[in-house]
This record gives sequence, structure tokens and C-alpha cells, in this order.
Amino acid sequence: MNDQFLRACRGEEVDYTPVWIMRQAGRYLPEYQKVRSKVDFLTLCKTPDLAAEVSLQPVDVLGVDAAILFSDILIPVEAMGLKLHFYEKKGPVLDNPVRDRKSVEKLVEIEPEEDVPFVMDTIKILRKELEGRVPLIGFSGAPFTLATYIIEGGGSKNYLNTKRMMYQNPQLFNDLMQRITQNVISYLSAQIDAGAQAVQLFDSWVGILSPVDYENHVFPHIKSAVKILGNKGVPIIYFVNNCAGMLDMAKKVGSDVIGIDWRIDMSRAVKRIGKKVSVQGNLDPCALFMPRERIREAAADVLNKASSARGHIFNLGHGILPETPVDNARALVDAVHELSRR
Amino acid sequence: MNDQFLRACRGEEVDYTPVWIMRQAGRYLPEYQKVRSKVDFLTLCKTPDLAAEVSLQPVDVLGVDAAILFSDILIPVEAMGLKLHFYEKKGPVLDNPVRDRKSVEKLVEIEPEEDVPFVMDTIKILRKELEGRVPLIGFSGAPFTLATYIIEGGGSKNYLNTKRMMYQNPQLFNDLMQRITQNVISYLSAQIDAGAQAVQLFDSWVGILSPVDYENHVFPHIKSAVKILGNKGVPIIYFVNNCAGMLDMAKKVGSDVIGIDWRIDMSRAVKRIGKKVSVQGNLDPCALFMPRERIREAAADVLNKASSARGHIFNLGHGILPETPVDNARALVDAVHELSRR
Repeated sequence: MNDQFLRACRGEEVDYTPVWIMRQAGRYLPEYQKVRSKVDFLTLCKTPDLAAEVSLQPVDVLGVDAAILFSDILIPVEAMGLKLHFYEKKGPVLDNPVRDRKSVEKLVEIEPEEDVPFVMDTIKILRKELEGRVPLIGFSGAPFTLATYIIEGGGSKNYLNTKRMMYQNPQLFNDLMQRITQNVISYLSAQIDAGAQAVQLFDSWVGILSPVDYENHVFPHIKSAVKILGNKGVPIIYFVNNCAGMLDMAKKVGSDVIGIDWRIDMSRAVKRIGKKVSVQGNLDPCALFMPRERIREAAADVLNKASSARGHIFNLGHGILPETPVDNARALVDAVHELSRR
Repeated sequence: MNDQFLRACRGEEVDYTPVWIMRQAGRYLPEYQKVRSKVDFLTLCKTPDLAAEVSLQPVDVLGVDAAILFSDILIPVEAMGLKLHFYEKKGPVLDNPVRDRKSVEKLVEIEPEEDVPFVMDTIKILRKELEGRVPLIGFSGAPFTLATYIIEGGGSKNYLNTKRMMYQNPQLFNDLMQRITQNVISYLSAQIDAGAQAVQLFDSWVGILSPVDYENHVFPHIKSAVKILGNKGVPIIYFVNNCAGMLDMAKKVGSDVIGIDWRIDMSRAVKRIGKKVSVQGNLDPCALFMPRERIREAAADVLNKASSARGHIFNLGHGILPETPVDNARALVDAVHELSRR
């Protein structure tokens, strides 16, 4: 097996820097569009054969060093009892956002094998079809990011409802976070049991918090989740979007890898993270719109700046954009491999 | 005159920490709503008597230590030749976004006294009506933030058009930035000549850039603007939204004050900024939804963390939200004054 990704997660020697791309299975790929044209987005997530098919596409098309389960970060939220809708060009909408104690207490403690069996089935198909070519990553939204969707009922500009609960009723917010955290632990444990060889927690919206709020209201929960999941024996990646203000705290959650966004210089991030944790990232997704030779230069810059990290998994600093030319994504993967070969 | 604000800008001794609030004249105030109910937003910006009236409201209602001109950051962009519209709940829209050389070259070199006389008239009325009670701040969007609107034609999620131009045609992007910068210099110079006693450059969207892109494509322009404006003899505040990744560069633009957002810890920011520049900020705007006694604690925390700065002007880390209870904003101003009195 190409285990460069897993080795980099653990800070072991690698032959070259492994690379995968957040949202690598998705709208920018014509192969994905073809599958997606036949079913709606949620059906695709919930149909193991199709979800496995699109998960494999970037392994074939781009030559990345890891596959990631095709799913949505809100799948466990739907299992918790909030009906989920995707409207074209509008993003996710959840019915009945949770803003009081009664609603918090109604949230379901999920049993992944019963409530979201399609996720575990997709993982099993993928492990079989990958035949050890590259490792398979499972994932979940991190507790805070899921909390924002649960409270806001979708995306948000200022996350006022979330912060209102955090500030006006910290006990209720804490109880909500605990329930979500418990579910994230069950959900990722089931993914690992089904065959996921690493898991990533996406804290996509945690960057809206002040560092002190992160420390008080979020950090204890994510830390406890990582601690329990750590016993499952697979690497844990914690992706902290817009991390520059909270990295010194985030690095302490106990994950094997910290995923970072593009708005911080990689050399500064590595310096702050230190030698106990590997890093993942962090090219601006828009850099894939550069001319090909400049993509190579930009990749070289990130590789160079990450060279003193314990381990480095190359990635974008956020999900690949739907408008991205596939050839440019492939050029990035090739450049990372060529430039980093030891 | 209450000159605490100007003294803090310059790093001089103060009797207490001065405070003003970004967007302090605006939708959260019933007094503002009353004026606004009679005219649309752009008419309000362009009618000196009314613009002056709403600029004065927060000085009376909240007791802040500075007034700021009521206007919009896109007023100079309209003068550059892009028709500006505000639709309710949608934000600004500019006709004919600028994405090629022909459009860049069509951009008008503005003569503020001729093209936006209402701004200078508002400033003159304000200086008269303030009668020296508190200093008056003028402002403009910073060049990069204006460039994003000019290129995108409004707000944006990923700023792909902006980065596309920056990456695919850096010379064109540079020429655009130069034209905008020249106009920002003329616009703020005219405001100072009309009576503005300090000016703030709002770089609201600069935080979408990687530090290396900021350094290469933005920093030289803002630095040259600040250098020229510095000769006008009034303090210059550079507000860098989502600054945590680029603060070490941003502090070198030469401004008297760096305004920072809430996503960085104030003590860390002060350490990085050093002793040559004052700081402004940085309470989370959502903190004004806390119970009153916790607002006081949160203010105390920011004051304490900023205590080793050269000078500190208390502010929110971004604009006050329309939903904010006025009493809470007033409680913040009172708390800052009481807690910081020497």
C-alpha cells in the first residue's frame, strides 16, 4: 500500500510529501457531475455504491495519496433529528433550529450503524475497491461547527444565534456541545470500525470565535473527543479553518495532525505548532487558477515552509472550488510529488 | 476639547481609554431609523444635513470619544464610475465590474470636491456642530477592499474574480490597485482639508489573502497611501479585518494606529505590534449580547490585555450589529470609561 499519507500523519519518514485535496470528490470533476446528474446531492451521500464511486474518482483522476469518504458534514446532524435540505445555490438548511433547552434535550443520541448505515457501507465498499492502493479517510464536522448549523439552521453571516446562546446561556450551550461531541465520537468510532484508516474533524466555522471563547466553550469538547478517538488507533486530523488566532490552543487538542487554512504563513504555523504534531495544508484554493508554472512555484513555497514540521500532508487550505480546472489540480498533485521526492 | 482619542492615537498620556464603535451611527439606533425611514441609504449618505445628524447621534446617545463621518466605503467607487445600488438585505451591487484592461483604464481619477462634495460638506457641518466636543474621524475603504468590490461587483464568498486577476494578470491588478490608491489618497486628503481630525482606512476584506499575497500585492500600495497621507498631520488608523495571519506585515504600513478584529487575542496582538504603533479594538461585536455584568468583564479583559500597548483606543473588532440593544452599547462605553480611569 501507498502509506505515505499515514506515515506523514504519524511523523514517520516518507519517500515524498503525500497530498490530498479537501472536497477532492466533487463538482469540479466531470466524472462527478455525470453521477450527480442522475441523483440529488443527499441521495448521492446516502447511496453507498454511488458515494463510493465518486470517492474513488480523484484517486484515479488526480493521483492523490488518500481517498476520503464522500459524504456531508451534516449527515450526523440529520440523524440527530433535524431534517436536512439542500437547495441549489443556497447551501444547507435545517428545519427547527435548536435554541432552547427543550430542543437540546430532544436531540437524538445516534447509533451510527442503525441511523446512518449507508456511511459504514460506503466505507466497506471503498476499502474493498481501493485494494490497499491508498488509505481511506473518514470524517465528521467538529462539534462546534455542527453546533453552528444546529443553532442557526444553516449557514450564517455573524453567527449571532450561536454566540447569543454561548453568551446568554453558557450552561445550555455546554450541554448542547456535550451531546454533539458524544455523537461525533460514536459516529467516527463507527467509521473507524468499518474501515476508515484516519479521520478528519472539520472545524470549518470555529474561526469566527475569539481565542478566549474558543478556549472556554470549544476546546474542552474537541479535546475530549480526540482523546477518546485516539484510543481507536488511527491518526486524527483536526482541521481548524481560519486558525491564525487560535493555533496555540488548537495544537493542544491531542490530534496527530493539525490542518490549517491559507490565511497563515506555513512557516509561522509550523513554528507555533512545534514538533509534536504534523501539519496539513495550506495552499489557497484560488491558487489553482494560477498559470501552471506558478502553481508549481506556489507548491514549492508551501513545501519549503513546511519542511521543518514533524510531518507534512500537502493539501489546500480549504475545499477545492467548483470552478477549478481539473488539469490544474492534477498539476498540483504532480508538482508536490516531484518537488518533494527524497 | 475631549482629545483623549487623538492622544491615544499618538501614544500620549490619557486620563482614560477613549472608545468609539465601528458603525456607531446606524441601524441599531432608533434615532437613526427615524431619519432613515424618510430617505434611502444612498440619499442619506449624500445629504449633508442628514448625514451630519446621524453622525452626531452616537456622541449624544452613547457618549463615545470620537464621531465618525456617516458615509459608505463605496462612495469613492461610485465616483470612479461604477454605478452603486443598495438593495435591502442584499448588500451593495456595482454595475459593470472591472475585470479587463479597458475597464481599468476607464476608471475616473476623482476630484473629491467636485465629485463627492457632499462628503466634505458633511464634515464641515459636523466640525461646526461638534463645537470641539469630540474629534471627528473621516474614512475610506482601503485600496484592496475597494478593489474586491470593483472586481466582484459587490460582496463575494471566495473572491475568485479578484484572485484570478491577481494571479493571472498581476500587472493589471497592480495598475488597478495604483489607480484606486491614488483616489483613496485624494479622497482622504480632501476629508482632512475639510476638517477630519483623523482618518481610518477600512481593509474589511484583506483577511481573505494569504500573508504572501498580502505582502506582494497589497502592502506596497497601502504603505504608499499611508506615507503620503501621513504628511497631512492627522492620525491614520489602519483597520485590518481578520488580521491574525498578516499582522507582522500590516503593522509596518506606517499608520499611527492598527485596528484589529476580535479573532486574535489582544495581548498577543500588542506583543506582535510592539511599541511604535497604537492599537484599536477588539471586542467581538456579539459580546454586546451578553448580560450587562459580563459585558463589563469582557471590556475589562480587553483593557487589561491592551494595557502594555503604546496607546489603546477601545472599539469593537468589527461593526456593531443592527440587532444590538442600545443600552448594552451604552453600558460598554460607560464600563470602558470607568474601568480605565487613571
